[in-house]
This record gives sequence, C-alpha cells and structure tokens, in this order.
Amino acid sequence: MPLSEKALISRIRRRAATGRRVITGVGDDCAVLRIPAGREVLVTTDFTIEGVHFRRAWHPPEVVGFRCLARGLSDIAAMGGEPQAAFLSLAVPRELPQRWINRFLKGLFGLVSAFSVTLAGGDTSESPHGVLADIVVVGSVPKGKAILRSTARPGDRIYVTGELGGAAAALKELMAGGKVSPKDFPRLFHPDPRVAVGRFLGKQELASAMIDLSDGLSTDLAHICEESGVGAEILEAAIPRARIGPKRTEVDIDHALHGGEDYELLFTAHRGKRVPNRIAGVAVTLIGEVTRSRRVILRGSTGKGSPLQPQGWQHFRK
Amino acid sequence: MPLSEKALISRIRRRAATGRRVITGVGDDCAVLRIPAGREVLVTTDFTIEGVHFRRAWHPPEVVGFRCLARGLSDIAAMGGEPQAAFLSLAVPRELPQRWINRFLKGLFGLVSAFSVTLAGGDTSESPHGVLADIVVVGSVPKGKAILRSTARPGDRIYVTGELGGAAAALKELMAGGKVSPKDFPRLFHPDPRVAVGRFLGKQELASAMIDLSDGLSTDLAHICEESGVGAEILEAAIPRARIGPKRTEVDIDHALHGGEDYELLFTAHRGKRVPNRIAGVAVTLIGEVTRSRRVILRGSTGKGSPLQPQGWQHFRK
Repeated sequence: MPLSEKALISRIRRRAATGRRVITGVGDDCAVLRIPAGREVLVTTDFTIEGVHFRRAWHPPEVVGFRCLARGLSDIAAMGGEPQAAFLSLAVPRELPQRWINRFLKGLFGLVSAFSVTLAGGDTSESPHGVLADIVVVGSVPKGKAILRSTARPGDRIYVTGELGGAAAALKELMAGGKVSPKDFPRLFHPDPRVAVGRFLGKQELASAMIDLSDGLSTDLAHICEESGVGAEILEAAIPRARIGPKRTEVDIDHALHGGEDYELLFTAHRGKRVPNRIAGVAVTLIGEVTRSRRVILRGSTGKGSPLQPQGWQHFRK
Repeated sequence: MPLSEKALISRIRRRAATGRRVITGVGDDCAVLRIPAGREVLVTTDFTIEGVHFRRAWHPPEVVGFRCLARGLSDIAAMGGEPQAAFLSLAVPRELPQRWINRFLKGLFGLVSAFSVTLAGGDTSESPHGVLADIVVVGSVPKGKAILRSTARPGDRIYVTGELGGAAAALKELMAGGKVSPKDFPRLFHPDPRVAVGRFLGKQELASAMIDLSDGLSTDLAHICEESGVGAEILEAAIPRARIGPKRTEVDIDHALHGGEDYELLFTAHRGKRVPNRIAGVAVTLIGEVTRSRRVILRGSTGKGSPLQPQGWQHFRK
C-alpha cells in the first residue's frame, strides 16, 4: 500500500464513527447498521470521476468532495428518506498532492456533519489515472412510504423546488475560461440536498412521485413519465430560473430546462393536495401537469406547445 | 450518454430484479430493501480498477466480473452474514469492445445467480482511462451476531478454510509471462466466497473473530490481532498450501503466508469449541493460537519462532 493510501485510510478512519445506528464502521469486513423498526432501507451509489464529473483545474477539491456526497444525499431526499450512513470509495493517483486529498475530505466531511450522517466505511486504492470516487449512501424510509418515480398519475400537478439552471450556467462560464466565484454560483459549488423537503413531502404524503434533478429537468421529467407510463405538460414561464453572477441575472431558459446538477427535487402531487409554496425554507413552484398522452410538451409564453426532448446532461466531454 | 453506456444500462437493467427483499431496484433514485425482522444490515464496498486489481491482458473479462462480486460476497461471509443485494457501479472507456462488457457481465451475473443475490442498482459512467468497477454488497445478520475482527481473545485457536497461496502463485506465473489455465489455478479465476461456512460459524456461534483472506494471511492475521489487541502464534507446517498447475504442486510457503486474493476465511474460536474439520464441504485447518503478547510469531518446522511481518498484498504495480 503506498504511503498516501495509508495516510488516506488513517484520515478517513479518524473521521469515521460508530453510533446508535452504526454498530461497526470502518475497520471490519463490513459495516454493521441497525435500521429502526418499521423502516425500509434505501441504497444509492454515485460515481465521481475526474475528467467526467469534475476537472481538477475547474473544481476546487472541497467542492468535489462536497458534491460527491451531495449527489448521494439528494437521491435519498428524492425518495422522501432519511440518510443514515455514507461509504466513501476513493482511488487516487500517486502524484496527487496530499493537500488535494485533505481539502477534498474537508468538503465531504463538512456535509457529513451538516446532515448527521455517519461515515461508516468504503474502500481505498491507488488509481492509475485521475481521482475516482464512488459514494454510497444508505438511508431509511417508513415501510411502504418511499416516493418512487413510477407512481405519477394523469392529472397530478408537477412541482420543482428552488431554482433551475444555476449549475449549468456556472459550468458554461468555466468551460469558456471565465472566472466563477462560489458566491455567485452557489448551486454548482454547494448544492444543498433537499432532504428536509423530501422528508416533509413523504411525511405529509403530498408527493405521488419524485426524482432529483441531477440530469436536468427535461431528462428527469422524462424519467418520471417513462417509469409512470404518463406524459406531462409544463409551462415555460412558470419554470423558476436561477439568478447568477454578481448582477443576479436570470439564466437562459435552456439552462433551466436541460442543465443538470442542480439537485433540486421534481415531484408530482394529486391535484387535491395542498402543496405549500415554501417547504423547509425552500421555494416550491408549480410548473405543469401530468397528462395521459405519453408526450412531454413545453408550452411557451404564446400558448404554443412543442415537444420537450430530453437533452441528457453529459457532464463535459474531453 | 454514449451509446455504449446506454446499452450497458439496458443490459444491467434486463438482468436486475426486484423480489421479496428488494422492493424497488434499478430505475429509481435509490433501491428500497426490506431487511428481515431481528437482523442487522451489512454493507461492504470493493473497487476493481484496471491496472490495479486486474489487467485486460491477463484476466479474461468473465473472471474480472466474477471476482468483482466475489470480493464483496467474501466480506459478507467474513461477518457470518447472508448476502441480499448487489450494486454495480461500472465506468468503461469509449474504446472498450461491447463484447468485453458482455463477458464481464456474464461472469458477474453467474455469481449473482449462484448466490441468489439481487442486482438492485448501481451507477454507470464513461471512464477516461480503463475499466473502473465498484461493487457494493448489502447483506444481513441476526442482531448482535456479526462476527467481528476485534473479538479474538488470548487462548483462542486460529483456523483457515481451504488452501492458501493459489491465487498468488497463479499471478506470479502470469507476471512471468506464463500460460495459466483456469482449471489449474481455480482460486485466482473463480474464488468461491465462503458464505455457507461463515453462516455456519455464525449460527453455531463457533467463531470468536473472523476476516476474509483478501490481502494474505500475514496481513489479515495482523488485522485481527490489531483490532483485537492480541498476538498470535502460527505453525508453518500446519498452513494448508494450495496445490496448483497440472502436477498439483504445493505452492511456496511465501505464497501461502503472504499471497492475497484467496478469499478463504481466517477465524478464531474459543478452545472449548469443537470446530469440525470440514464445513459445507470446505476443509477447515487449525493453524495456531491467539496470544496475549501483541506479536505475531511464525513457528518453523524446527520449532524456532520468528516474527511474521505483514507483507501487504500490493496487487501488481505498473
């Protein structure tokens, strides 16, 4: 084991913990978790690969670590669940400065604390090329209460949390060689997993289906429609666009429609449900309706409808 | 998403399943698992990285896929647990032939079937360099009955399953440019996770501590000793050495002592326990004893003892 890997394990181990729900953590063949009675287990895994999900030249290490865990927490939020334990698998190239790892872990550990998640294990390895991370988050949800993608019904209303397109707009700036300050582009740097919103929607039984916006509205809405066997109609004017940069400019509609990595929630609710316009401090906006026809239609400001093609979030290409 | 990734997801999805214990699998933000009442959850994650854990030139794709999951199942076995669901995160380079992926999945799915595990999710991505896999296995164990590394006590006896050093000996042949047939070197190509043995030891409450031999006897025994705050004395002559090659030659003692990736079990048992010499068809061999002094001593055939240094399994270096 190269020294840096040993140092890495020791750093992770110092930070890892056991607790009421994590009986055995780092340091055994498996972690042992205790799931509260009457709950089901949620499991999600997300890669973070250098050159695919981030670039060392563009993303400060703290941001990479933060977002690495944020992606998993956001998946738990999208089921209406409660995160419980995280597992970090991290492979680093030999030439990677120790400082980069320290800053990466700082970003990740910050989120571990903020969400009271236990870092309960993982794996480490040398990487032949670039940084590779895979994060697993285990959570739980009351039995039978997980909010799925496949349970939207025609007539349900469609909502999103927060504002969309901020991460994509920031990434565009970065790709064009611009300077991007974390303060001006908060969603790219520090997306805030909507765990409290998801939990509220689950507890109040408000949402009929839910997904997190990791790939972009057009793609993630298509996922809900496909899994539920329904269509959707959304109003362009209703889509809450992120305001970015020092002048708080609204992002282009294309960024709001297709940009990924905002980690907001997209959910549907039966039209009889009263959905608050603010949940856990986060704005909730009605953007459209689920339809019986299996197409997704975007209705412009003139009232004209056109098919909304999912434009899959491609991260960035080399 | 590149076409090959789409094809990959569709192949995995066709094979993935839900069942009595996996309520929701691939196709949602998280998998939803139901854990039987009175049991705790086991979670283990293992990287399989091209150039670190395997080489395309040496390892047939079926073997890479098989071993990828075998590593996780072996960790569940080492806790005395029952595997329940597996999650495959797989990133592949654009130039990777589809056939390689198909054969990789064939090897992995073979083991999924053999152990009645449900493939319940994962992640896919493009990889900028080489194949990257991370496997997560979730299992369960009766509450409070997980067999840890940290609970060996002085006076306990030390046992191993099967034979040791076979994988390392095969790897040495490969590294020297030799021809290695899977038939002659079964442990390297198709290690058999000792789930039934682990479960038996747990059920009968025979083992006081346990670990799987992924890094090699000297390293993994040191792990048990370190976590338990004890030492050990083992008898060189008692160590069951693998017989390999067409002539069934015993491997060198160094391979049996330090070679990794055999995925046998190393466990301790109180001296009052009657440990069978065969469990679930697998040989079980007494090789030594846990001591109060914190050193690990290897006693040679002359009776002379010398410290056994953990010689960590390094996979192979570029």
